[in-house]
Amino acid sequence: MAQDKRQVDAITARDVDFAQWYTDVCTKAELIDYSSIKGMFIYRPYGYAIWENIQKELDKRFKETGHENVYLPMLIPESLLQKEKDHVEGFAPECAWVTVGGSEKLEERCCIRPTSETLFCEHYKNIIHSHRDLPKLYNQWCSVLRWEKTSRPFLRHREFLWQEGHTMHATEEEAREETMRMLNIYADFMENVLAMPVLKGRKTDKEKFKGAEETYTVECMMHDKKALQAGTSHYFGDGFARAFDITFTGSDNQLHHPHQTSWGVSTRMIGGIIMTHGDDNGLVLPPRIAPIQVIVIPVAQHKPGVTDAAQDLLSRLQAAGVRAKIDVSDKAPGWKFAEYEMRGVPVRVEIGPKDMEKGQCCLARRDTGEKTFVPLAELESAVAALLDDIHHNMYAMAKANLDANTFQAETWEEVKETLEAHSGGFVRTKWCGDLACELAMKDKVGVSSRCMPLEQSGTTGKCPVCGKECATDIIWGVAY
Amino acid sequence: MAQDKRQVDAITARDVDFAQWYTDVCTKAELIDYSSIKGMFIYRPYGYAIWENIQKELDKRFKETGHENVYLPMLIPESLLQKEKDHVEGFAPECAWVTVGGSEKLEERCCIRPTSETLFCEHYKNIIHSHRDLPKLYNQWCSVLRWEKTSRPFLRHREFLWQEGHTMHATEEEAREETMRMLNIYADFMENVLAMPVLKGRKTDKEKFKGAEETYTVECMMHDKKALQAGTSHYFGDGFARAFDITFTGSDNQLHHPHQTSWGVSTRMIGGIIMTHGDDNGLVLPPRIAPIQVIVIPVAQHKPGVTDAAQDLLSRLQAAGVRAKIDVSDKAPGWKFAEYEMRGVPVRVEIGPKDMEKGQCCLARRDTGEKTFVPLAELESAVAALLDDIHHNMYAMAKANLDANTFQAETWEEVKETLEAHSGGFVRTKWCGDLACELAMKDKVGVSSRCMPLEQSGTTGKCPVCGKECATDIIWGVAY
Repeated sequence: MAQDKRQVDAITARDVDFAQWYTDVCTKAELIDYSSIKGMFIYRPYGYAIWENIQKELDKRFKETGHENVYLPMLIPESLLQKEKDHVEGFAPECAWVTVGGSEKLEERCCIRPTSETLFCEHYKNIIHSHRDLPKLYNQWCSVLRWEKTSRPFLRHREFLWQEGHTMHATEEEAREETMRMLNIYADFMENVLAMPVLKGRKTDKEKFKGAEETYTVECMMHDKKALQAGTSHYFGDGFARAFDITFTGSDNQLHHPHQTSWGVSTRMIGGIIMTHGDDNGLVLPPRIAPIQVIVIPVAQHKPGVTDAAQDLLSRLQAAGVRAKIDVSDKAPGWKFAEYEMRGVPVRVEIGPKDMEKGQCCLARRDTGEKTFVPLAELESAVAALLDDIHHNMYAMAKANLDANTFQAETWEEVKETLEAHSGGFVRTKWCGDLACELAMKDKVGVSSRCMPLEQSGTTGKCPVCGKECATDIIWGVAY
Repeated sequence: MAQDKRQVDAITARDVDFAQWYTDVCTKAELIDYSSIKGMFIYRPYGYAIWENIQKELDKRFKETGHENVYLPMLIPESLLQKEKDHVEGFAPECAWVTVGGSEKLEERCCIRPTSETLFCEHYKNIIHSHRDLPKLYNQWCSVLRWEKTSRPFLRHREFLWQEGHTMHATEEEAREETMRMLNIYADFMENVLAMPVLKGRKTDKEKFKGAEETYTVECMMHDKKALQAGTSHYFGDGFARAFDITFTGSDNQLHHPHQTSWGVSTRMIGGIIMTHGDDNGLVLPPRIAPIQVIVIPVAQHKPGVTDAAQDLLSRLQAAGVRAKIDVSDKAPGWKFAEYEMRGVPVRVEIGPKDMEKGQCCLARRDTGEKTFVPLAELESAVAALLDDIHHNMYAMAKANLDANTFQAETWEEVKETLEAHSGGFVRTKWCGDLACELAMKDKVGVSSRCMPLEQSGTTGKCPVCGKECATDIIWGVAY
């Protein structure tokens, strides 16, 4: 055993260096590895398993609301990307370009998709002819490329995994409903599965998706009080449909352009999970998404019957539908405790000779560290209740962080003072709607607009920059 | 209704023009659409749903045998691809190359992965150090690019969806076991889920994967008596490990190179399903993979209670875990029957006023066209039994085609005559092992070696080309 002895590598303390803490968690919990291309990461089994669970949960919700999955090519001819003016301006500067196929230079270069609106429009033009062909409710699971200059695991990759929904509707009303339906599905998923409270709102024109009429967002607050844009849902009107000449014959026998939406979330959410819930001991995973919900660890496993008793608990948990594993390796229990804590496993079940005598086992929860003893007969119900309780507690802690660090201010100077006084957070002000004032906030305070929250106060007040009387509430913050 | 009236588009007869029949089925059953880039196809909802069912079934089998999913970058730097000599020679000529990222020319160009051995090796070098790190049993679901000159839906795409398993083992024996384990999982899956009988064998050196020591294959016979290579499993020895300098400390405290495998199947299997089972009325889907297993169609649905009765059957089937749908649109029943036949739905359930009176419904099976009436109370058990029976019948029909068109011959002239007499098929001969004789068969007969079957006769005989006495059985055929 000596030659393989290994201590859990120390993780930088979260409040000493948050960025280093984050990188430590990503690599030491074996979520990610670096590849030889800058900004392109390897999703390791534990990190990918989180994504698989996210996919399963979201895919179910997409299908329940009538969406179908498709797969479109990864390459976009340059002329196709250029069909919608705002869109190409937004994405062309960060595309990776294929110029050679086999041994021949291509007649027209192609980019690897940074997003697939143009490809979907080309396909929709082929298959939409009548109002009977609508709505089209498509989704695609894939990876996309954006040739970013800086990168961080999960938060900013040159290649990342995501889903992109693309839908076409007969009317503006239906398309607007879809835009909000998907935003609400994202919000519900993040709160009820990832235990991440969200702020729902609309992006300013400066921050919206290039080519969209309106972009809606779910914004989350990380432990360091910075914002993470965790998902977006876009309403396109008929702009792309016009650019791509997509029409359908309505029940009125006239030609119309369909109305379009798109919406997406990515592996960036895994970065959000880490930065929302993690602590100095490493990762803390929300139970509903954790690849391992319960780790069973026998204590004094050389004693007769201990390993069998632990295996029995494992079988019972698995039979109850819990994602449970056991560690019967020859490492010391203390090493194992630290290892699975670092990897964020929500519940540890311990059993040793003394527990067996008493007909009990020990449940240790990752979020609070608290230990309780439960009679063996109550294992399944106790674990199920504990997993639920952990979810709710994690959500409550994240919500407390969001609430405690969301402030109100009236002038840009107040915004600045507030953020300095609290080392970050979200600040709510009024906004006149002018781009100049939005840019001034970046310039004077160093914040960007996160969103105009869907829940507006309805009062009027003054723009913090120009002082003009206005009604719109807006949230400012520093974002990842 | 008149304006939307549409007949099911005619499909070219299978025996008139098999290639056109195939394309008709792919497009008219809405499995696939063309994109603006030659050879890059769009997987439409119905085609993609077949792939999702394939993924679900295979992924379960992979995980049950200890494999974990990962995701590696889609780009390979040219120098990385070049590390293994045979491998780069095999793949470089058909790579798509990224030369520009953002607005800058890349210092080193990257290809989009045609397969990921090199990327896995780079990663394995980082994470394999001790015998305790072995085995590594990884799989990846992704798309790959091969810049082919010709293309056909599902059979030959420039971009196609697949899974690629990549494993590392401490010993040759373990790696060889893994190679065969995965081959057998593929064979079992194809036979018991896709209803496609397979021929298992080893590829000749000419036909093996570039860089592998040995390639094993599952070959299937299509309705037109051509072969489809439906899946491969490769044993690499430690060739890549040496090229990439991957070592581990064994329990003997010495440095060793691990032994490697890779294995893959792709959406090409969907082409195999179509060409194995389809008929003049279109697609015939194996029940265990069909996105819609049962379509419920009310007859005379304007009569009181009919639609409700049909809905009730739908609910019961769905509750019993059957993938069932209903069509209550205003199209005529005859149109619906033809449409779902063309789309290959295994079972149609009809119910009309007369059936309701008699307390029965009608089950029509797609494979034989046979109709039976069953008492409503027996719906679930009758449908379950019928789906099973359809699977077995489809397998038996495909097996009969394989057996009836597999021949034996002794000389190349006999091979030629046999294939001409039967318009195709597989021919089994002896083979001396010489590349020259294998090439001569291509030249003189127009066939390639499909595989050396795992089940060898154990007898000796003469090579059909050079006449040398030899023991190896080999199968020749024309392949997709």
